[in-house]
Amino acid sequence: MSSLRSWLYIPKNSHFSLANIPFGIISTAESTEPRPAIAIGDCALDLKVFAANNGFSALSTVQPHHKVFSEPTLNAFAALGRPIHSIVRKYLQNVFLDDTPFPEVLKTNPALQKQALVPLKELQTHLPFTIGDYTDFYAGLNHAYNAGVVFRGPNNALQPNYKHLPVGYHGRASSVVVSGTDIRRPKGQILENPAAEKKVPILASTRKLDIELELGAFICRNNAMGESVSVDEAEQTLFGLVLLNDWSARDIQGWEAVPLGPFLSKSFGTSISPWVVLADALEPFLVKGLENDTQILPYLQEAREKNVYNINLAVTLKTSSSESRSTICKTNSRNLLFSFPQMIAHHTVSGCPLRVGDLLGSGTISGTSPSSCGSLLEQNANGKGSIALSNGENRTFLEDGDEVRLSGFCGEDDVLVGFGECIGKILPSL
Amino acid sequence: MSSLRSWLYIPKNSHFSLANIPFGIISTAESTEPRPAIAIGDCALDLKVFAANNGFSALSTVQPHHKVFSEPTLNAFAALGRPIHSIVRKYLQNVFLDDTPFPEVLKTNPALQKQALVPLKELQTHLPFTIGDYTDFYAGLNHAYNAGVVFRGPNNALQPNYKHLPVGYHGRASSVVVSGTDIRRPKGQILENPAAEKKVPILASTRKLDIELELGAFICRNNAMGESVSVDEAEQTLFGLVLLNDWSARDIQGWEAVPLGPFLSKSFGTSISPWVVLADALEPFLVKGLENDTQILPYLQEAREKNVYNINLAVTLKTSSSESRSTICKTNSRNLLFSFPQMIAHHTVSGCPLRVGDLLGSGTISGTSPSSCGSLLEQNANGKGSIALSNGENRTFLEDGDEVRLSGFCGEDDVLVGFGECIGKILPSL
Repeated sequence: MSSLRSWLYIPKNSHFSLANIPFGIISTAESTEPRPAIAIGDCALDLKVFAANNGFSALSTVQPHHKVFSEPTLNAFAALGRPIHSIVRKYLQNVFLDDTPFPEVLKTNPALQKQALVPLKELQTHLPFTIGDYTDFYAGLNHAYNAGVVFRGPNNALQPNYKHLPVGYHGRASSVVVSGTDIRRPKGQILENPAAEKKVPILASTRKLDIELELGAFICRNNAMGESVSVDEAEQTLFGLVLLNDWSARDIQGWEAVPLGPFLSKSFGTSISPWVVLADALEPFLVKGLENDTQILPYLQEAREKNVYNINLAVTLKTSSSESRSTICKTNSRNLLFSFPQMIAHHTVSGCPLRVGDLLGSGTISGTSPSSCGSLLEQNANGKGSIALSNGENRTFLEDGDEVRLSGFCGEDDVLVGFGECIGKILPSL
Repeated sequence: MSSLRSWLYIPKNSHFSLANIPFGIISTAESTEPRPAIAIGDCALDLKVFAANNGFSALSTVQPHHKVFSEPTLNAFAALGRPIHSIVRKYLQNVFLDDTPFPEVLKTNPALQKQALVPLKELQTHLPFTIGDYTDFYAGLNHAYNAGVVFRGPNNALQPNYKHLPVGYHGRASSVVVSGTDIRRPKGQILENPAAEKKVPILASTRKLDIELELGAFICRNNAMGESVSVDEAEQTLFGLVLLNDWSARDIQGWEAVPLGPFLSKSFGTSISPWVVLADALEPFLVKGLENDTQILPYLQEAREKNVYNINLAVTLKTSSSESRSTICKTNSRNLLFSFPQMIAHHTVSGCPLRVGDLLGSGTISGTSPSSCGSLLEQNANGKGSIALSNGENRTFLEDGDEVRLSGFCGEDDVLVGFGECIGKILPSL
């Protein structure tokens, strides 16, 4: 999308340009009921108020469904399907255009502007969906390799299945929280000396609290139990994306995860960014993913060549002792071996039912250099090294009071398609 | 509870004696909206109709909440807490007593009997809860050992963590279905020759479709994220139990499950019995569980000695070629190393939030002899042997058309506290 002027002031470097139009759930001090909104520039457009004031009257395909904008989550809107999401997004872009074909809707309607446009600084964001199930994949090839080297050495770093299928596991939906929610350092069973022959755990607060930089994808179509979704149909199942921090307690994980996988080391909290960037908005930024040197089975082969997003991702850390933020990771979502449609096709090949509002995590996204790694585990070889922060401190794993911020965007100034931020601060154990 | 006479005919061997009073969700051809009910003898008492006709008017603590009996699930009723469940159960026992103190409520009210009592044969059962998250544990010591022998040999059968904590993993909520729902044979990536050095998977229908005989427990209290539930409080978090069949595809599992655990090999379907037996009804059947020769950490130590249920469990199989049922497993739920309160204490020690309606699976329950094993994997050493059925057929794993039935009960005739059945039939892959 070329740069389009809006009658609304949109800062040049805003993540929420006219090219974006991400959806979320907001509330305000005056109106505490959560309701749908879009982010645009420094504002949100309250879609409940907008719809109630005939904002969608011109859209005959959407008007009959206007009640979805009074719901406390995006589930009902998402369930309308991608063709409707496209229509709504394009219409809202048009409403905000300087030469909008619908000036009376909002541009020349100061009363509705006053009612429906809320500064982002004055609102609270909420979890955008009621999440039925959360599945976490492991499609970041470099992360899987780096973590494999740490635990099994370079010769067995990747398991034999890794390049044949998007490895994944069931996560915990109840502990997915929206950006800004504090994360309490979890307690659990850990080994003080994992190398000792006799393994006797203690109950303690994790000493290896880590982040995982991921993308999350929300599902907008149910498949019936027993039926699968083909990889080419799968795009229609993809509502949009968020940033996702899959907080991890490495010492709890190391002890608990055999033979059934990670459990409490993950489910104490998973943070997501509040604004869901629609799949439509991200389509211009599709690029070819990492080369897979393994022949994948036909059900995972996509017709399109460009299948992963070119999203610039960064992680910053602010400690409790200063206001400065250190960038601890810069990477790009091209570092995925499998796309979300491939994850969806694989997830459903067994007949497993996906439902509207389900969340899929991509797996940790890492490049090949240490500073491009999306977890501290990789950067410090599971506690052996540490990272120098810009304020003179060092970090191996996270300390209490640390605030982690993920950010991500596609494109360039004036037409940025950005995710905003995904923030979480570590509280001490109870 | 000693044998108590009811004015309603209750067969001597009914699972749903006056000592039980299990809760479920029903609908009928005449009234298709799912609503709560209890099972008693050969009937269900429709609690929506019962409540609407002043059935609970005498109960001042329950009457203000009577709308929970108009809900399509048990979530709202469960959320009232165990003291209320106790009051409701005891009251309903009294209503059905031959010398009921409340004859006018139902015994001498043939009009309400006609409206509210529905023969079990004429109704449909539904999933009793909206399940937020489903967690599957692995607390059946003999199963864990037997499966470990199959995969790692007798010396490393149990992982070092096994006796220190109830091992568990996140399951899939969307594919939990009520008894009677057919299960479609899943497809997935499998290795035709797992022993070959070069691992090249094919996409195929599973050839190793298995059962896992488990108990499921429903949660009736939320804990806030970051807070834990002590093992002694945990009993108050336990609504009641069902039978659970954790259908498993062993060949898909063998290929996919490293390093993050079972995924599609499990999430194609999990069946539960429709009638939830309240924790109160099971309390008389608490016994000491298996001896744990490992010193467990204080947060898992229960004040009570008797902590697992003495439930007689059986699995039968009917093939498509005859009407006869073969018993393929007889065992008892004493074969658990950890109790549900211990699982709850462990699950929340990290601060992971449980919510009303969450489901916990116990893990497969097996005895020590082959015919007491709750999975075919154990009985056939992962495909090396087979089981002789009473109709002359043999089974290694399940074939299309096979119908599996789990059943379970505590106590003796006239005072049985039973679970009824959990049935699933295998449909061929699409």
